[in-house]
Amino acid sequence: MTLKTGEDYKRSLAKMKTVVYVRGEKVDRFYDHPCLKPAVEIVAVGYDLAHNPHHASCTTAVSHLTGEIVNRFVNVATSAEELIKREKQIRLASFTTGGCLYQCTGTDAIHAAACTTYDADAALGTDYYQRFNEWLKYIQTNDLCVNGVITDVKGDRSKRPTEQVNPDLFLRVVEKRKDGIIVRGAKVHQSGAAVMHEHLVYPCQAMRQGEEQYATLFAIPADAKGIIHIHQGTSADAMRLVGDEMDFGNIKYGASSTQMTIFDNVVVPWERVFLCGETQFTRDLVERFGRIHRCVSCSCTSGWIDDFIGVAQALAEYNGVANLPHIKDKITQMTFMSGRAFACGIAAAALGYKTPSGVYLPDRLLSNIGKLDGALSINESRQLGIDIAGGLMATAPWGKDYKHPEIGKYIEEFLQGVEGVPTEHRLRMFKLAHHLYTSSGIVETKIQGSGPSQVQKVNIYHLANLALKTKVARILCGIEAEEEMGNVLKDFSEIA
Amino acid sequence: MTLKTGEDYKRSLAKMKTVVYVRGEKVDRFYDHPCLKPAVEIVAVGYDLAHNPHHASCTTAVSHLTGEIVNRFVNVATSAEELIKREKQIRLASFTTGGCLYQCTGTDAIHAAACTTYDADAALGTDYYQRFNEWLKYIQTNDLCVNGVITDVKGDRSKRPTEQVNPDLFLRVVEKRKDGIIVRGAKVHQSGAAVMHEHLVYPCQAMRQGEEQYATLFAIPADAKGIIHIHQGTSADAMRLVGDEMDFGNIKYGASSTQMTIFDNVVVPWERVFLCGETQFTRDLVERFGRIHRCVSCSCTSGWIDDFIGVAQALAEYNGVANLPHIKDKITQMTFMSGRAFACGIAAAALGYKTPSGVYLPDRLLSNIGKLDGALSINESRQLGIDIAGGLMATAPWGKDYKHPEIGKYIEEFLQGVEGVPTEHRLRMFKLAHHLYTSSGIVETKIQGSGPSQVQKVNIYHLANLALKTKVARILCGIEAEEEMGNVLKDFSEIA
Amino acid sequence: MTLKTGEDYKRSLAKMKTVVYVRGEKVDRFYDHPCLKPAVEIVAVGYDLAHNPHHASCTTAVSHLTGEIVNRFVNVATSAEELIKREKQIRLASFTTGGCLYQCTGTDAIHAAACTTYDADAALGTDYYQRFNEWLKYIQTNDLCVNGVITDVKGDRSKRPTEQVNPDLFLRVVEKRKDGIIVRGAKVHQSGAAVMHEHLVYPCQAMRQGEEQYATLFAIPADAKGIIHIHQGTSADAMRLVGDEMDFGNIKYGASSTQMTIFDNVVVPWERVFLCGETQFTRDLVERFGRIHRCVSCSCTSGWIDDFIGVAQALAEYNGVANLPHIKDKITQMTFMSGRAFACGIAAAALGYKTPSGVYLPDRLLSNIGKLDGALSINESRQLGIDIAGGLMATAPWGKDYKHPEIGKYIEEFLQGVEGVPTEHRLRMFKLAHHLYTSSGIVETKIQGSGPSQVQKVNIYHLANLALKTKVARILCGIEAEEEMGNVLKDFSEIA
Amino acid sequence: MTLKTGEDYKRSLAKMKTVVYVRGEKVDRFYDHPCLKPAVEIVAVGYDLAHNPHHASCTTAVSHLTGEIVNRFVNVATSAEELIKREKQIRLASFTTGGCLYQCTGTDAIHAAACTTYDADAALGTDYYQRFNEWLKYIQTNDLCVNGVITDVKGDRSKRPTEQVNPDLFLRVVEKRKDGIIVRGAKVHQSGAAVMHEHLVYPCQAMRQGEEQYATLFAIPADAKGIIHIHQGTSADAMRLVGDEMDFGNIKYGASSTQMTIFDNVVVPWERVFLCGETQFTRDLVERFGRIHRCVSCSCTSGWIDDFIGVAQALAEYNGVANLPHIKDKITQMTFMSGRAFACGIAAAALGYKTPSGVYLPDRLLSNIGKLDGALSINESRQLGIDIAGGLMATAPWGKDYKHPEIGKYIEEFLQGVEGVPTEHRLRMFKLAHHLYTSSGIVETKIQGSGPSQVQKVNIYHLANLALKTKVARILCGIEAEEEMGNVLKDFSEIA
Repeated sequence: MTLKTGEDYKRSLAKMKTVVYVRGEKVDRFYDHPCLKPAVEIVAVGYDLAHNPHHASCTTAVSHLTGEIVNRFVNVATSAEELIKREKQIRLASFTTGGCLYQCTGTDAIHAAACTTYDADAALGTDYYQRFNEWLKYIQTNDLCVNGVITDVKGDRSKRPTEQVNPDLFLRVVEKRKDGIIVRGAKVHQSGAAVMHEHLVYPCQAMRQGEEQYATLFAIPADAKGIIHIHQGTSADAMRLVGDEMDFGNIKYGASSTQMTIFDNVVVPWERVFLCGETQFTRDLVERFGRIHRCVSCSCTSGWIDDFIGVAQALAEYNGVANLPHIKDKITQMTFMSGRAFACGIAAAALGYKTPSGVYLPDRLLSNIGKLDGALSINESRQLGIDIAGGLMATAPWGKDYKHPEIGKYIEEFLQGVEGVPTEHRLRMFKLAHHLYTSSGIVETKIQGSGPSQVQKVNIYHLANLALKTKVARILCGIEAEEEMGNVLKDFSEIA
Repeated sequence: MTLKTGEDYKRSLAKMKTVVYVRGEKVDRFYDHPCLKPAVEIVAVGYDLAHNPHHASCTTAVSHLTGEIVNRFVNVATSAEELIKREKQIRLASFTTGGCLYQCTGTDAIHAAACTTYDADAALGTDYYQRFNEWLKYIQTNDLCVNGVITDVKGDRSKRPTEQVNPDLFLRVVEKRKDGIIVRGAKVHQSGAAVMHEHLVYPCQAMRQGEEQYATLFAIPADAKGIIHIHQGTSADAMRLVGDEMDFGNIKYGASSTQMTIFDNVVVPWERVFLCGETQFTRDLVERFGRIHRCVSCSCTSGWIDDFIGVAQALAEYNGVANLPHIKDKITQMTFMSGRAFACGIAAAALGYKTPSGVYLPDRLLSNIGKLDGALSINESRQLGIDIAGGLMATAPWGKDYKHPEIGKYIEEFLQGVEGVPTEHRLRMFKLAHHLYTSSGIVETKIQGSGPSQVQKVNIYHLANLALKTKVARILCGIEAEEEMGNVLKDFSEIA
Repeated sequence: MTLKTGEDYKRSLAKMKTVVYVRGEKVDRFYDHPCLKPAVEIVAVGYDLAHNPHHASCTTAVSHLTGEIVNRFVNVATSAEELIKREKQIRLASFTTGGCLYQCTGTDAIHAAACTTYDADAALGTDYYQRFNEWLKYIQTNDLCVNGVITDVKGDRSKRPTEQVNPDLFLRVVEKRKDGIIVRGAKVHQSGAAVMHEHLVYPCQAMRQGEEQYATLFAIPADAKGIIHIHQGTSADAMRLVGDEMDFGNIKYGASSTQMTIFDNVVVPWERVFLCGETQFTRDLVERFGRIHRCVSCSCTSGWIDDFIGVAQALAEYNGVANLPHIKDKITQMTFMSGRAFACGIAAAALGYKTPSGVYLPDRLLSNIGKLDGALSINESRQLGIDIAGGLMATAPWGKDYKHPEIGKYIEEFLQGVEGVPTEHRLRMFKLAHHLYTSSGIVETKIQGSGPSQVQKVNIYHLANLALKTKVARILCGIEAEEEMGNVLKDFSEIA
Repeated sequence: MTLKTGEDYKRSLAKMKTVVYVRGEKVDRFYDHPCLKPAVEIVAVGYDLAHNPHHASCTTAVSHLTGEIVNRFVNVATSAEELIKREKQIRLASFTTGGCLYQCTGTDAIHAAACTTYDADAALGTDYYQRFNEWLKYIQTNDLCVNGVITDVKGDRSKRPTEQVNPDLFLRVVEKRKDGIIVRGAKVHQSGAAVMHEHLVYPCQAMRQGEEQYATLFAIPADAKGIIHIHQGTSADAMRLVGDEMDFGNIKYGASSTQMTIFDNVVVPWERVFLCGETQFTRDLVERFGRIHRCVSCSCTSGWIDDFIGVAQALAEYNGVANLPHIKDKITQMTFMSGRAFACGIAAAALGYKTPSGVYLPDRLLSNIGKLDGALSINESRQLGIDIAGGLMATAPWGKDYKHPEIGKYIEEFLQGVEGVPTEHRLRMFKLAHHLYTSSGIVETKIQGSGPSQVQKVNIYHLANLALKTKVARILCGIEAEEEMGNVLKDFSEIA
């Protein structure tokens, strides 16, 4: 087995028959479309980083299935040390691309599927775990990239799947056949879905008895029959269609890229089905996915804030204000938040535990805390960046104006900043600020991604151990005897 | 004299020879260009509101110069009552358009120019105030719209105008001739500049002795020879070029619209020159403009937050979550912030004072406080809106996908929300959320507009009356005798 | 009629038989008790300010009942102008004392009682309004101070009054007799109750049918038979008992002073009963009281923050750090918040309206917004003050150590700050910081006072006019026709 | 060697001749004084926890000097694992006492002294490290508690030590003799100093050439001749003097306890001198102390917030409001902040490194971030606690009123909360809330302790690696070639 390079990956896409629509048109060479190209480039970075000698310890790992070196994106962590390395991998990747590498949903889905199918087999005597491992070996051996496919369209959010006007508003098994299952539904906010090799498809919430048709876990190639990817329609995509390269801001890796993925009666062979109707395992499956995804999101948020800092500081320098106390104070606050988000991820990894399957899971409470913190911090950082950058990040002319034979000279003359910095550099940096601070990418990847804040809050409240905390309060103020303290606190793990 | 209608205004633009560039092209019928059309439509609203019987008391006023009814945008307030009406006018206008009506910079520039030229004449025996009033009568009589032209490009911000590598980085008088002055320079962040009739041009900061060439105040038609408008290049503009009408979100009034305005040796006749070299009046001129602009910005910010609330609440209803406590809490917080920003504007107006010229000015401290508050609140509101709206505001497909004969049916089926609300409505509302919550318009109009937050902070510290406050502290803790209290606090106005 | 002085007021207390308990003891000369003396001194300030020629326009008013000049604390505002003057009076009083003048609950209770008894009479043909006015004339003529008595002990807050284990957990009429009613219950958080002349007693929430016994409004002297005041037990009170004068911090006006007021079968003559069983008017009564109290709380919060600023700035100067950017930034933030809270009060007053009774009421939404803002801001200000003051505000030795013959010299030597400032001054200022920033006074007067934040939030949500806001959103994104805009927005008052 | 119990510790204090003044009086049996007793009790907890079989793995350690089991408070961590255990020890201790165990300054001072004297010896050939280790063995063998003595009184903070009016405003060596050095000065904010066995005395900032007399590090028993402890004078201490036990709130461990420690010509034998004039090592010494102290402060802050949660939740239950959404939301926010602060400490420990001396140091950036986060969070948590607790935490009567034969019955009747909870419990819990949420203890231990926030901010800015971040920004927007990415980011450690 060999680790793919970015180029290998690009070539592999050309062989796929993935169906992708953008702005009302079916695109043939989707990997070359201006709206999808940035996603291809950034996934390629994930492949190339595995070949970088400085980073290989973080970006690759030894497979516990094959003993071979694999890309960490398709590896299963079995220790705190491995998970901490992944945090570093992700911060590095986010920081150096200003974007999302798209594979984390897959990695996290692989982790949660591994330990949960193990549990299912242990309880039910099924062979899901083995099927899953066979599939995972195939992924590792061929170094494929995987999309974790979670979020259903959900319709009326106050209703359960079976109560919806349309039963397909949550993806479900519409038929079971000898050769496999047939599924129908649609998944939204699918980051990078169209440029992945495989989809690992989840239920999007814990299912209850009576909702068996929705309790399914399976894998399917992205170009399987019946799968349609409809690309997002955002302003940042619009800029990709009409802007000059300068206008893109983050020129190569650009806008985050999501698709709505339609599953219109897709056939999934049984060997790729890893749960089918076992509702009792969906809670763990979904919770574990969410937990790991939130744990790792700390690091990618941190990396993005690092970029926010870089742009803000560069513009402050170009504008001649980098040494003003209020600028330094804002940079400090951004650095504080980048580090704090990262710290939450590291701590969740450090204080995790190994499941019977061998899969290492991060601490659940800290993972949720970290994601919530990151979502709050990235918004505040963005605002601080805007404050530092100044109005030109929003009002600078088009790249084509700058390159225009007649009016370009005015821009050259009048958008000059401090001496020694070419106007073009300042203009490019404003464009990067425009892109990073205003494009909607942070909404789906950093804020709504891995669940809106309210989901984390519900988790945090649930894990707050209020009985213990009120008991200590009662002892301190003399309602209960102090000897009680010894009885309630036998184990540190009860504290947090 | 008659008040123009929106249609009158549009017809008047067609007669102008304003030079406008967009994305590297000179556009002939600029008022019809997709990137400028929204600005034209929204300015037209300002004209039409003056004819609305429900709102005329707020949107029109009686000119103190002519005794005629004029649009409040070109009127000078001479009392708290008038200024409070203007606050209402602006909140109304912002709220009902989701945008900026572009005339406030002009109105505020008119106010500050009126009282400051009055002061200049009183001190120097000049006739600037009379010249200015003649021009203002012309504006009122013809019901023209005016752009307050303030912000220079400024180059290296740590340097004074004369220290820059290029003396034209602050607009200046390059020559004085018999028939007028010749000016050169460039102004940025000019909201709606290209669709205004007139430019009232300011220095952008207090000028010192030796900087006389920069201390000039004058008026000039927007289509005067030598003036070039270069339109912003933003993602929201890109969407105007390639999107379906649905994709615009705020369909008619759309993206905020700014231009960079080049003054390349423009001739200004003497009767339109209202200051020329009197550096000693530039501090008041600029401070008063900023103060009024900040005072009124409270109301437009409030109106925008009202829109943020409307979209968030509509989506919460379409998603079936409007009654969840955390949603109600967020709506409450947004309403709190909308009302608070408005309150600051009203209070600044209520506690203002009349200058010797008759022009009524708002309280300086509260005006700065209000602007700072609004800038903080609009960002927090935006974030709350994003939290409520959910990921589809960032990941929904293009309008053309929805209207596509084949894949449109999938979107119709799968993006259905609560029963009874058509998918199209939900999709349109997501597009409005995408536009309102992510476009860069709030950056220049609400955050950087009327000066970045640090400018308001400097003003607030300067006005904090720390000597009085420390004296009271010393009396309370026994360092100074209590009889001192009577001596220091003779007048309420010292408190604030 | 003559306006009392502070001395007159003190003499009047000596004639009262008010029952007061402090720390388990019944105190005879309650007005001289170290824990109550500060309250007496600060109420005296309210009397003296009416004689101060600089402030009389704010601190006195012309009674609409008698045409005489009265202390504004017992006056009824009938215009925005009058209410704005009261805001100034309160900011002034708070700022110059670092405390609460205790009469606002009375003033606010007078306002709400006046307009609501007017409404009751208009609807029911009763004579409550006349009775009330007779009582008010008595108060004004004798220049008495009045406590607004609102908050019941409430027991289990999830239950209605009649559902409680003890029906007296909300104050109620236990018997109606010829000579009057007999009431029983207890009120908590009664600021300054023990040093007031009169209690004007309210129900503490809107009562429903079946809760008639709780729907009563009446006035009673503070020393009536059956009334017992039990003084708070706080750390700040403890300091009053064992500290040196230096240790008090705010030496004369000191700690805020509350009592729990027991009504143990108190007889109230009919002419002092202003509602008795008319549950349908309790909602307005309570809402109006809360609204006015919140409106005015903006100004007293602002005045307190002014004191927080004074102490912080003084200590920064004594420590030699006043010019550091981060100190100036914190002072700026505190000034911002003081001004913003005040602005909310002014705006609520400016945008109020006159009721049929002639009583002028502030805007309900803005009053609630202002109170919420003030509660948030005073906490943040306190924290900023702590940051500036430094650790010695919490760790400085006792005044008696400083005055000790042997160890006093060490303190003199080692707690010296910048040259030229005596150590004693610095020490006194630290003590004032300790008092202002840590005593629990802000909890009941500024945070929980006039209702906890959640109450204001419920009000704000209720007043948010979401139907209008969602309608505008629907028009902007093309769901409804733009002509609809004209239909929905006929009156500015609908906006806010 | 045996580990002391709490009782052993108490007995050991009785043998000391420590000089302590409280409220102007020299106290003989200082360990029994009501203001110092809580400190003695809480230090005793630290000793007893080492005997608790559930916690011994966190609260004890194996000495790297002697191989014996020692209390972790006097141990030197040599790995991430050990430091993570200490984080757990401290969170546990804070949480179960609602206070500070006072030994952390000593532990942290021991760590920094160990590695820095090692470095000094390596560079200069001195024997400080050996002297220090001898002393540390003595401490470990006798299980003594140590106060890290850092903060000088500092006088005018804008001046260096030698520029002060009094050279002793920073502690200094006033004479070097054969038998040792003589030092003079005063240290403030000395948490628990009077109840410690030993003082390990530091310079309080990095010293420069010419400031040799201030560059000294030494150990001295707390009862050495010339040392005087002057106890703080706070309101919480006042309550200890006049309150009933109920009023203390946190009955046993009560108020945090600090002293000002005077060093009036104290003789220190040479074997207890660990630096003397080597200014070049003071920067590392102080920085490392601050870093470790900040790292560990994350956990004690977390433990305190846990207590804040316990009290708030208990009161919410007693008041019948625990299930209201806004209460749950506030509890969630507090839990979020408690966990986040803890996470920062854990991450700083996990990502630390071993110094040549073998001492393990936490990550410097994350340690500073964690302390800053904790200081912000504890204040916000306190405010949330106040919001939940309600006004009675500030206005409840004295314990002696409750126990009073006549009026006690009113309190019993009227302060009843939900059925089934005795009034006394509710009252006790309000007292605990009063103590925890308003006493000044959090000011010196959690906010100003280990340096005010501005110090952490300066550290964070200094460590922000802005050159790397701006370089990445330049590459992303096309100013620099993408190949550059490989050159700049060779090591993950450069990222953070």
